Amino acid sequence: MIIVMKPGSGQELIDPVIERVRELGLNVHLSAGEERTIIGVVGLPLPPTLDEMLEVYPGVEQVVRVTKKFKLAGWDFHPNKTVFQVGEATIGGDEVTLIAGPCSVESEEQTLETARAVRAAGATLLRGGAYKPRTSPYEFRGLGERGLEILAAAREETGLGIITEVMTPGDVETVGRYTDIFQIGARNCQNYLLLEEVGKAGKPVMLKRGLSMMIEEWLLAAEYVMAQGNPDVILCERGIRTFETATRNTLDVSAVPVVQSLSHLPVFVDPSHAAGKRPFVAPLALAAVAAGADGLIVEVHPNPDHALSDGAQSLDFAEFRELTPRLAAVANAIGRSLPVPEGVSV
Amino acid sequence: MIIVMKPGSGQELIDPVIERVRELGLNVHLSAGEERTIIGVVGLPLPPTLDEMLEVYPGVEQVVRVTKKFKLAGWDFHPNKTVFQVGEATIGGDEVTLIAGPCSVESEEQTLETARAVRAAGATLLRGGAYKPRTSPYEFRGLGERGLEILAAAREETGLGIITEVMTPGDVETVGRYTDIFQIGARNCQNYLLLEEVGKAGKPVMLKRGLSMMIEEWLLAAEYVMAQGNPDVILCERGIRTFETATRNTLDVSAVPVVQSLSHLPVFVDPSHAAGKRPFVAPLALAAVAAGADGLIVEVHPNPDHALSDGAQSLDFAEFRELTPRLAAVANAIGRSLPVPEGVSV
Amino acid sequence: MIIVMKPGSGQELIDPVIERVRELGLNVHLSAGEERTIIGVVGLPLPPTLDEMLEVYPGVEQVVRVTKKFKLAGWDFHPNKTVFQVGEATIGGDEVTLIAGPCSVESEEQTLETARAVRAAGATLLRGGAYKPRTSPYEFRGLGERGLEILAAAREETGLGIITEVMTPGDVETVGRYTDIFQIGARNCQNYLLLEEVGKAGKPVMLKRGLSMMIEEWLLAAEYVMAQGNPDVILCERGIRTFETATRNTLDVSAVPVVQSLSHLPVFVDPSHAAGKRPFVAPLALAAVAAGADGLIVEVHPNPDHALSDGAQSLDFAEFRELTPRLAAVANAIGRSLPVPEGVSV
Amino acid sequence: MIIVMKPGSGQELIDPVIERVRELGLNVHLSAGEERTIIGVVGLPLPPTLDEMLEVYPGVEQVVRVTKKFKLAGWDFHPNKTVFQVGEATIGGDEVTLIAGPCSVESEEQTLETARAVRAAGATLLRGGAYKPRTSPYEFRGLGERGLEILAAAREETGLGIITEVMTPGDVETVGRYTDIFQIGARNCQNYLLLEEVGKAGKPVMLKRGLSMMIEEWLLAAEYVMAQGNPDVILCERGIRTFETATRNTLDVSAVPVVQSLSHLPVFVDPSHAAGKRPFVAPLALAAVAAGADGLIVEVHPNPDHALSDGAQSLDFAEFRELTPRLAAVANAIGRSLPVPEGVSV
Repeated sequence: MIIVMKPGSGQELIDPVIERVRELGLNVHLSAGEERTIIGVVGLPLPPTLDEMLEVYPGVEQVVRVTKKFKLAGWDFHPNKTVFQVGEATIGGDEVTLIAGPCSVESEEQTLETARAVRAAGATLLRGGAYKPRTSPYEFRGLGERGLEILAAAREETGLGIITEVMTPGDVETVGRYTDIFQIGARNCQNYLLLEEVGKAGKPVMLKRGLSMMIEEWLLAAEYVMAQGNPDVILCERGIRTFETATRNTLDVSAVPVVQSLSHLPVFVDPSHAAGKRPFVAPLALAAVAAGADGLIVEVHPNPDHALSDGAQSLDFAEFRELTPRLAAVANAIGRSLPVPEGVSV
Repeated sequence: MIIVMKPGSGQELIDPVIERVRELGLNVHLSAGEERTIIGVVGLPLPPTLDEMLEVYPGVEQVVRVTKKFKLAGWDFHPNKTVFQVGEATIGGDEVTLIAGPCSVESEEQTLETARAVRAAGATLLRGGAYKPRTSPYEFRGLGERGLEILAAAREETGLGIITEVMTPGDVETVGRYTDIFQIGARNCQNYLLLEEVGKAGKPVMLKRGLSMMIEEWLLAAEYVMAQGNPDVILCERGIRTFETATRNTLDVSAVPVVQSLSHLPVFVDPSHAAGKRPFVAPLALAAVAAGADGLIVEVHPNPDHALSDGAQSLDFAEFRELTPRLAAVANAIGRSLPVPEGVSV
Repeated sequence: MIIVMKPGSGQELIDPVIERVRELGLNVHLSAGEERTIIGVVGLPLPPTLDEMLEVYPGVEQVVRVTKKFKLAGWDFHPNKTVFQVGEATIGGDEVTLIAGPCSVESEEQTLETARAVRAAGATLLRGGAYKPRTSPYEFRGLGERGLEILAAAREETGLGIITEVMTPGDVETVGRYTDIFQIGARNCQNYLLLEEVGKAGKPVMLKRGLSMMIEEWLLAAEYVMAQGNPDVILCERGIRTFETATRNTLDVSAVPVVQSLSHLPVFVDPSHAAGKRPFVAPLALAAVAAGADGLIVEVHPNPDHALSDGAQSLDFAEFRELTPRLAAVANAIGRSLPVPEGVSV
Repeated sequence: MIIVMKPGSGQELIDPVIERVRELGLNVHLSAGEERTIIGVVGLPLPPTLDEMLEVYPGVEQVVRVTKKFKLAGWDFHPNKTVFQVGEATIGGDEVTLIAGPCSVESEEQTLETARAVRAAGATLLRGGAYKPRTSPYEFRGLGERGLEILAAAREETGLGIITEVMTPGDVETVGRYTDIFQIGARNCQNYLLLEEVGKAGKPVMLKRGLSMMIEEWLLAAEYVMAQGNPDVILCERGIRTFETATRNTLDVSAVPVVQSLSHLPVFVDPSHAAGKRPFVAPLALAAVAAGADGLIVEVHPNPDHALSDGAQSLDFAEFRELTPRLAAVANAIGRSLPVPEGVSV
C-alpha cells in the first residue's frame, strides 16, 4: 500500500500516519520527493480496510492499494485455470458447458420432458429451481424439497448433472443431498453466511453476480466460498442494473474477459436473465460464447406461455434446439468446442 | 391491467390472449378502437407476473399494470401515516428521530461511552453492529452475542432503545432477545426468508435499501415483512450505486418524498454509508432532514481513526454534538422538531 | 395514448382532461370500467410531450404512450433494412463491415501506414480523427483540416472510404468536403443543431450512442438527422456508463438486437472505446459480431505506446491482423460473412 | 504520478517505462522496495493522458495520478471562494441565490407575468429558454431571438438579471447581446467548442452537469471555459441518470459538498429537472439549500398545465411563493441567508 501525502505536509502530519501503521504491526518505507512524501507500507497481512483507515488522516492525499484484496480466486497463487468435472460435464476446460432447464421445477412431467429435450439438443447439465426468490411475496415460490426430488429423478433418467438454487444456510444440507452444483442467486451474492455454508458443503458452487456488484466484490464473494476449502466455484454473469430498460438487465459481456484476466475460475453467462425477453436470448448467448465464456445457463420450458416464472425469457424446445448448433459453430470459430449430438443441426 | 394490441392485430391474435386471461380465473373488457384493440383485465387478484406472461403473446404491443404490486405498504388500505413507539422515541410522527452509535460494537467501554455521548447530544436510539457483513472474508465480523449483551448494557444504563443488524434467519431469535429494532442491511434487502423471519418476530424492522433496488422493489421487500403481520417497518435510504465514485454511494435524497408519496411507512436516511467520508456526512444529514426524512441513523465513534470498521465515515463526539443543533434548526425550519438537550447548541 | 384515471375519479376530474385533449385538436374514446375510467386519445399527430402534460392532472393515475416517438427510424413505415454503399463497403447487408484506423490522425506516414495495414487485414473503411473532443483542455486536439487532407490522401492511395468526426455545425462544410461518412461522437449525440446540419449534408452519418443515452433517445437522435432528408444513418454502440470501472465503459451488447428489433438502421459496435484496454478489445469485437452487429469500428495504431490519444485501447497491426480472420469465422458461424483478403488467416 | 510495477518486474520491464517518461521531457524517482519497484514521475506539466500511456506497458501494475487534472477550477491556485455580482445578485457569497422562471419563453405576457411573480417571491434572477434542446425533433424548440428580446424586456421592467441557454457556438454572439449569464445545458456539457466560445464572451457561465458526468469531468469542462480567461463559472447539479425511474433524474445532492471540497466555484442545484414531477421539487430544493448549495434554479410557470415544455415539473406562482420562505428558513438554519421580500411568509 502506498500513502501519498499532500504537497507540503510536514513531519507533524506524517508522524501520526507512520505511528498508526506501526501500531498495526506493519512497517514503512519513506520516500521524500521534491514536492511530497510518499509512504510505502511494508509487511503482511494488510488489514482489508487499511486504506479507509488511513485516508482520514489530515495530510493524506490518497491511499493506493497495490495488492488485490482477493487471494484464492486470483492468479497469483494458482497459475492454472480451474477445471473440474460434474457428471459428464468438464467445467473450465476447452469445451463450452451448456446448462439448460426451466426456471422453476413445476411438475415431474414438465421437468423430465425438458431434461430430455435439452439433453437431446446438447446440454450436459440440467437447471431448475425448487426454492425461488421472488420480488413480491405474492408470487409462486417453488415446490421445495419435492422439486429437488423431481430434479433427482430427471438426473436418474437422463444422466444430466443438476444445479439448483439454495437461498438460506438452513437449506444447504437438504439441497446438498440432491444437487450436484449449488447455485447462489444474484440477490444472495453477498449473503456471507450462506456463502460460507456452501463453502463447507463439498460440492461446486455457481455464484451469480449481483445486480450492482463490482467485479472485485464478486471475486471477494468467491473468496468467502473458497476460504472454507471449496475450490470449485463458477462465476456467472447475468446482467447488471443500469439506466437502460429495454432489456431486463444489461449483460456485461466484458465481465467475461475481465474476470479471466483476474481469476482462474470458470466464467459462465446467463443470457436469459440478462435479456428478460425471448428474442434477445439467442444473440446474447452467441455473444457470450464469442467473448470466451466457459459456459452458458439458459432457461428452457416446454410451454413458456404457461410457465409459473420467467416465461417471457424462456426458450421453447424448438428455439433451444435451433440455438445449440449455432453456439457450437461460434465456439469452433474461436477455437473451442461445444459438442452437440448428431442430427442437431441448423 | 390493460393489454394494448398492435395495430391491425386480428381476432386470431386477440383470442389466445383472452383465453389465457380467462384460464387464470379473470375476465376481460374489450375496447376496439379505430386503430387497435385494448383489452382490460377485470377481476382480482392479478398474478404478480401477469404482465410478463402476456407480453410474449404475438400481437401484444404493451401490457400496462394499473394497480401497484404492493398493498400493505401503500396508502390505499392504510390512509394514515404509520407511527409507533420504541423506548422514548416516537417514530413516524412530527419529531425527527435521531439514531446514532458505532458501526461495530467493539467493547463495552467504547459502546457505553458512545451511548452516553450520543444521548447527551440528542439521539434517542443507539445503533451498533454485533454481526457485521463484510465484503471481504478477511475483515472484522463483529463480536456476535457478546456484542448484543454490550448493547443491552448500554440500554440499561442510558435508557436508549437499541437497533442492531441481523444477517440470517437462524440468528433472529438470538438477536430478538436483545434488540428493540431489527436492522436488515442493504446486502440482505432481498433475502426473503430473513425478511419473513423478522416479520414474525414481533419487533419493528428497519429495512435498508439495496444498492440497486428500485423503490417499488423496496416496498415489496417491506411487504414481505408486513405480510407476516408486522406493521412496524422503517425504510432507510443509504445511497445507491451509480457511476459517481466521489462518494461511497450516491444518496438518493429524492427517495424520501417519493416513498412518502407511495407509502405510509416512515423513511429514514443513513448519511454515513451514503457519504463514506466524514466531511460529507453533515451536509447529507442536513439535506435529508430538509427533504422530510422521518429520522436519521448516523455512525459515531469515540475515536474514528481506530474504529474496526467504517472509521472513515464515522463522526467523533464533538462533530456529532456540533451537528445535532443544526439538524434541529433545519427540522424547525420545515415545521418539524428534533429535540436536543438543553445546553447543546451551535 | 391511453389515460388511466385513479379509481373513483369522478366526472369533475375526468372533464378537464378531456377538455385539454380537445384543445389540442385531438379526440377521446371513453371506456368506463367497474373500477376506473380509461380515456383513449384519438387523432394525430400527438404532441411529443402529451404524456407529461396530462400526467399532472389530478385524477390521472398513469398515461401510457402506445405509439413510438420515432417514426423515420422505425419499422412501421420502412419495412426493409436500410442498406447503402460507401466506396467498396456495403453497409447494412449480409456482410459485416470492418472500419479500422487510428484514433487521431497524427501524421501522413502514420495514417498511410495504418491504412495499408488495415486494408490488408480486411478493413473496407478507414477511421481517423482530425478534430478530437478531449475531456481536458490540455490534451491533443487533432490536426484539423490538415488531418482531413491526410485522410483523403490515404483514400486516394488505398481506395478505402473514410469516416471522421465532426464536432460543431460550423465544421460540417469543411469536413464534408473530405469525408465519406460523418461521425457524431458520443458527447455530441444530443447536439441537435449539429445533427440537423449533418442531416442536410448529403452523406451518411454514424451516430455514436451517448454514455447515458437510452435506446429510444438514440433513435430520436437519428430521427433528427433523418428528418432533414438523410436516410443513411448508422447507429454505433460504444459502451455506456455504469458503476463498473474494470472497463472504460460497459459495452451494452444487447443494444444490437434491441435496436434491430426497433429500427431498420444498421447497428455497429466500437469495441475499443467500450473496452478502454487492449486485451479486452478482441473478445468484445467477437461478441459484437456474434450478437449480429452490422459492422465494427476498431482503433488500430502502428505504435500504440506512442499514440497521441487512446493508445491504451488501440491494437497494433499484428493484433488486428490476428483478429480479422477470427471475426470472419464468427460471422460465418452465424450465417453472415466478413471477407478477409487471401493469406490472412489464423 | 506514481507507477507501480508488478512484483518481480525486472530491469528489462522497468527500463522501457523510464525511457518513455524521459522521452516526454520528464524525470523519474526510483524506489525499489522488497517486493516491487515504484517509479515516481518528476517534472511538469504532465500530459493529461500520461496514465493511460503508461498503463499498457508490460510490467506496469497500476499508474496513480497524484495531481488533479483541473487547475483553474481547483483550490490549489485560488484559495478563496469565487464571488461575483450579476445585477442585484451576489453569487457565491453568504446569500443563497434564487433563480426562477419558465422553462421556455412562450410569450411576452407569460414571461413578464412570471418575472413579476418570482421577483415578488424572492428570486433575484430570471431564467427562460429561447433556444430549447429537445429529445425529439417534433417538439417546440423555442422562440429564438424573439425570446431573447422578451427576456430583455422583462429585465427592463423588473430589474432582474437574466440567464438563458446557448446551444451552439454560432449563437454565442446573439445570445450574448441579451443575456447576463450564459447557460450551458446538460446535453452540451462536453461540447468543447461551445465551452470555449462562451469562455471568450466575457459574461458568467452556468455549466449544468451532464447526465453521466463524473465530478472530475465536470470540473474539467469548467476548465475549458476558464482557460479562455473567464473566471465566473457556476456549476449546476441537475440530477444524474441512474437505474431509478421514480424521478426524472436522480439528484446527486452530495455533489454540493463534494464540489465545494474540490473547487472554489459556486455550486447551484436545479431541483426541477432532477425531480421531473411537481410534488418533489420543493423537498429537493430544501435539501439542496440544507446541503450548502450556493443557489437554486427553479422552473415556474403561470399555468403549468399549459406550458409548452416541462409543465409537469414547473411550479405555479402560489407554489413558488409558498416555497421561498421555507427556503429562507432553511438557509438561516445553516447560517446563511436567502432574503425574501417583506410580506412573503409561510
